[in-house]
Order: sequence, then structure tokens, then C-alpha cells
Amino acid sequence: MADVARRAGVSMATASRALSNHPHVAAETRARVLAAAEQLSYVVSPEASRLAGGATDRVAVVVPHIARWFFASLLEGLESVLRDADLDVLLYHVGDEADRRRFFERLPARRKVDAVVVLGMPVRDGERDRLELMGVHIVAAGGQVENYPYVSIDDAAAGRQAVDHLIFLKHRRIGMIAAIDPAEPGWPANPGRTHAYEMALTDAGLPFDPALVVTVPWGGLSGADAMSGLLSLRDPPTAVYAHSDEVAFGAMRTLRRAGLRIPEDMSVVGIDDHPMAELSDLTTVAQPVRDQGVLAGRMVLALLAGEQTAGGVTVPTRLIIRGSTAPPRR
Amino acid sequence: MADVARRAGVSMATASRALSNHPHVAAETRARVLAAAEQLSYVVSPEASRLAGGATDRVAVVVPHIARWFFASLLEGLESVLRDADLDVLLYHVGDEADRRRFFERLPARRKVDAVVVLGMPVRDGERDRLELMGVHIVAAGGQVENYPYVSIDDAAAGRQAVDHLIFLKHRRIGMIAAIDPAEPGWPANPGRTHAYEMALTDAGLPFDPALVVTVPWGGLSGADAMSGLLSLRDPPTAVYAHSDEVAFGAMRTLRRAGLRIPEDMSVVGIDDHPMAELSDLTTVAQPVRDQGVLAGRMVLALLAGEQTAGGVTVPTRLIIRGSTAPPRR
Repeated sequence: MADVARRAGVSMATASRALSNHPHVAAETRARVLAAAEQLSYVVSPEASRLAGGATDRVAVVVPHIARWFFASLLEGLESVLRDADLDVLLYHVGDEADRRRFFERLPARRKVDAVVVLGMPVRDGERDRLELMGVHIVAAGGQVENYPYVSIDDAAAGRQAVDHLIFLKHRRIGMIAAIDPAEPGWPANPGRTHAYEMALTDAGLPFDPALVVTVPWGGLSGADAMSGLLSLRDPPTAVYAHSDEVAFGAMRTLRRAGLRIPEDMSVVGIDDHPMAELSDLTTVAQPVRDQGVLAGRMVLALLAGEQTAGGVTVPTRLIIRGSTAPPRR
Repeated sequence: MADVARRAGVSMATASRALSNHPHVAAETRARVLAAAEQLSYVVSPEASRLAGGATDRVAVVVPHIARWFFASLLEGLESVLRDADLDVLLYHVGDEADRRRFFERLPARRKVDAVVVLGMPVRDGERDRLELMGVHIVAAGGQVENYPYVSIDDAAAGRQAVDHLIFLKHRRIGMIAAIDPAEPGWPANPGRTHAYEMALTDAGLPFDPALVVTVPWGGLSGADAMSGLLSLRDPPTAVYAHSDEVAFGAMRTLRRAGLRIPEDMSVVGIDDHPMAELSDLTTVAQPVRDQGVLAGRMVLALLAGEQTAGGVTVPTRLIIRGSTAPPRR
């Protein structure tokens, strides 16, 4: 394969894709690779060809977390579509660095699936190369992964819906609790959600005060700590925008414990519409999570059928106003 | 296979197990089946034998729900052990009757796994027969399934910890919100949890008032409705025992909306220790959910290695007292 790639003047990944009839290879490139393969008497091994050609009837799903609502909901939607198409779902949880390395080293070597779906996590450059070498289809859901078809929300738009709602209510000091994934320290979980906050303030002519921004590892207890920090400011915010509902639930606990009323003393808005949001009367920006899994599953089916798919699908979010937001009282 | 079973005087399932060297077959029975097979020149097909003999390196996991915390947590624990042993996890969500039928009809016919793990759901008689015909190992987690190795809590003991706590606090009128799974109408999700309530009242010399028992489909909003029903009684309870934390969260919303204080006006106790329980200050009986998945995974590995396993493992639960329970004020 390396010889074929060199002779054709393309990368190994491109050579692999061309030889496995991957749809996203230019006709001219494919012709060049096929010519090189013929000159070198390159034979695609029957096993590799069979597996890469769509005959395993299995799809690998890679997730960084299983037990969290967001990822489990994506998985549920995806599984339903693949199962209806009689495809088997191979589940791979890559929780830490060792898991990741193992997954990205071993699965490509085995070539035992027709497609790989990456749920809610970034894929690094080296990992991308390995996936491409497999010559299988790759789809991302619950987040965008460069160069692959994806299904995602527009994080910046979702963030604007949340922050603009607080601004509309005439809040002027708005805190933000941003969440990062400790397993991905270099990857701000949702840069779009942070950017939305900054843009919304700018557009409203409000000053950006770095003291009002707290960044914590994802999770409810982290949200609780972050809220404590915001309450310890000399001039606390009157409203808080949390990057996710689970973080917002933690913030709400801190407010309850401090004897503060929601929304009279502090407004809180989240993003997600987690099942607990309705039970907690939390105003939030809802995203259709299960649907993102369903749409990603349909993309997989289209790709396996040799159809072209949209490069990316962005699903809409919407503000759901409940009891945790109101105009400020001071 | 039917002829072999008839001649040996055993069921098809037993004959299949004997021929596939399943550990739970008596030596005498196995000898009888092997003799019958020899007399009939029965040949185990190489494909079936290979797959039934442990060579697929795949384990099927069957779940009735993916996106719910309890099931996703079981799955996460199970997947971690199987992955460490280099086994692949095939995920099957059987949400409704059609899914169930499809799973139990097709998987056995394909024999493409070494073991089947059933998470938090009952297996019916006909389905059991089909699984046994596969001649693969079967393990249950998050609930007991008759005749199979399982990992579970003791639901009756967990229920006693919850109700006895309320009785210890001197509550005399204690309501129960029992949850059923709409997908399993005939299967009270947790008969042990209901039985615990009745036994605890009896042991404390308290009368059983059927008006204080509300049975609803599983879910937070159902819990909210159930609490409304209990509050509409002429003589409402002073404390409520919910079969699960998620049901309890719904009950707490109704109390908040009614302007009642928890625990001053009403104590609430759940079962699970859902991540939101800590954030909601809910007193609950914690069960180690992820651990049940881990232990089930280890059982699978032991069975595949030809080792004997305990018939069942019961993991302990423990009461966690938070802010939602206190002595009654009236």
C-alpha cells in the first residue's frame, strides 16, 4: 500500500480509500491510484477487501462516556437506526488515553467493521490517519469532526439563545460557568458556547468581566463549586449561563443552600434540556440529542449504500423558558 | 438436534448445552446426550461449533433502555471489563415487543457471540429456550433472571433500608410510589421493593392503607403525578418512599410547586443514588450500579474460561441520609 501511495503521489489514506471505492475520492485520483496498483501488481487482500467493502454488517460506535445522558441518548438513537437496518453495533468506550490508543491502534488493524461513528468527541490528527487507513466510512454525531460528515447543533447559536434571553430580561451582570472535559484538557468542550457569551455581551454593549467567567471540569458538583465562586465576588452576577444543564443543576444546589431564591435572587439558564431540567424547572436551550444519533445512523446507511451525503447536518436548538429565569430585582 | 434430544430424553436446550460443553450440564446427562449423538451420527456443524465454542470474541449485551442512567451505568461497567479482555461488545436495544421478538429470533439463529448478558430486564420462558439453544453462556445483571448467573441488589433489603429509616424517624403514615415499566406491564419492576414496604409496616405494627400506595409507569413526571395524588388525600402521608430516585425527583417537584417544604412538611426517600440525588439533597438507598456491570463482566470471563461461577452475586446497598428526610412535625 505504501508503494502504491508513493507511486501515485498520494497519502496512504487516500490510496486506501481509492482502492476500497470510498465515495470521497476524486475520479482522477482514483484512476491514478488504480494505475499505480496495477503497475505494482498490488492485490487487495480478500479479507481486507471483504471487510472494507461493507460485508461485515457491523458498525463501530466510539464514545468517551457511556453513562452520561447526552452520550447514552446519542447512542440510543444511533442504535435504533442501525438495528432496523440489521447492522450490528460494536460499542467502544474510550475513556482515557490508554483506551484511546488501544482503540485507534487495534480497530484499524482488524478492519472488522463497515463504518465508524464517533459520538461527542474530537478525533486527533494521528487517530484520523488510522481511521482513514481502514478505508471505512466515518461519521460524527454530537459534535463536529473536521473532514467527516457530522450531525451536531450550532453551539454558538445555542449559546446566543441562552445569553440573549438573559440580556432580554435586562440582566447586566451575567456570569458564565464553562465546562471542560477532564479527559480532553486541550479541547474546550464547547468553544462555540464560550464565544456566544462574548459576542452577546459585545452586541448588547455590555462589558466583559473575566471575574464572571468560571471554567470547571464537566459535572454537577463542579457547577456547585463554580456557583460558590461567583457568589463570593464583591459584585456577584444577577444571572448565570451554564454550558450544560448538569452544571446548572449544581449551581442551583449552591443557590438553594445559600438561601437564595431562583429566579428572584439569581436567574439560571442551561443548555441541553436534560430530562431533569423539566423536573427542576430549569430554563434551558433544548437540543434534540436522540435525533442526532438517528440522523447519524441514516448517514451511515446512505454512505454504505454508496450515496452521497451532506457534509454536515446542523440540527436546530430552541429556548425553553421555565421557572429559573426572570428580570433582575436589583 | 431434536432427534438427539428425544433419544437422550432431555430438552433441546439441554442437548445443545451438552454438545457445546456448557459447564452447567451434569456429567451423566452429558454422557447420555453424547451417546445419543454418536448413535445418530450427529455432527455439530463446524460453524456452529466454532461460534458456540468461544471463538467469536464477541459478547452480546441486551438492554431494554440505553439512555437511562441505570442501564447506561451497567453497560459502562460491563463494557470496561469485556474491553480489557479484548472482547467486543455487540449492543442490542430491545425496546418494544417487535424488537424483543427480532432479537430472540435472530441472534440465536446466527450464533455470532460467545455469551449474552441481559441487563435489567426479565427473560420470558420462550426467549430463555431460544437463548439456551445457542449453547452460549448467559449472565444477567441489574436484576435476577431465573436459572442464570446474575449480579443484582436485594430489592427487598434495599426497600427495608428506605422504609425502616422513615419508621425510625417516627413517621406513621408513609406513602409509597411504586414504579412499573410500561414495556413490561406484567412485570412489577421491583416486587421486592413493594414487599419491603408491606413487611416494614407489619413489623412496626403500622396499618397498611392501600390509599397510600400509588403505582405509576417509571419516570420523573409520573412521580410528580403520583405525589399530586397523595397530596389530594383527606389524610396525606407525612413521608413518601419512592421506588427509584427519578420517581422521587418528580415527587419533590410537586412538593415544591405546592409550596411545601422538604423535609419539614414531607420526607422523601428514594432508591439508587442517581447522580442527581446528591445535587437534590435526596436521602436514598445507594446501589453500586457500575459495579454490577463490572461483576457481570467478570462472570462472563470466568464462564468463557471454563470456570465455575457462583449462581448469583448480591451486591450490598446502603442508606445515604441527606436533607430530604426528618421526623414528622404533626
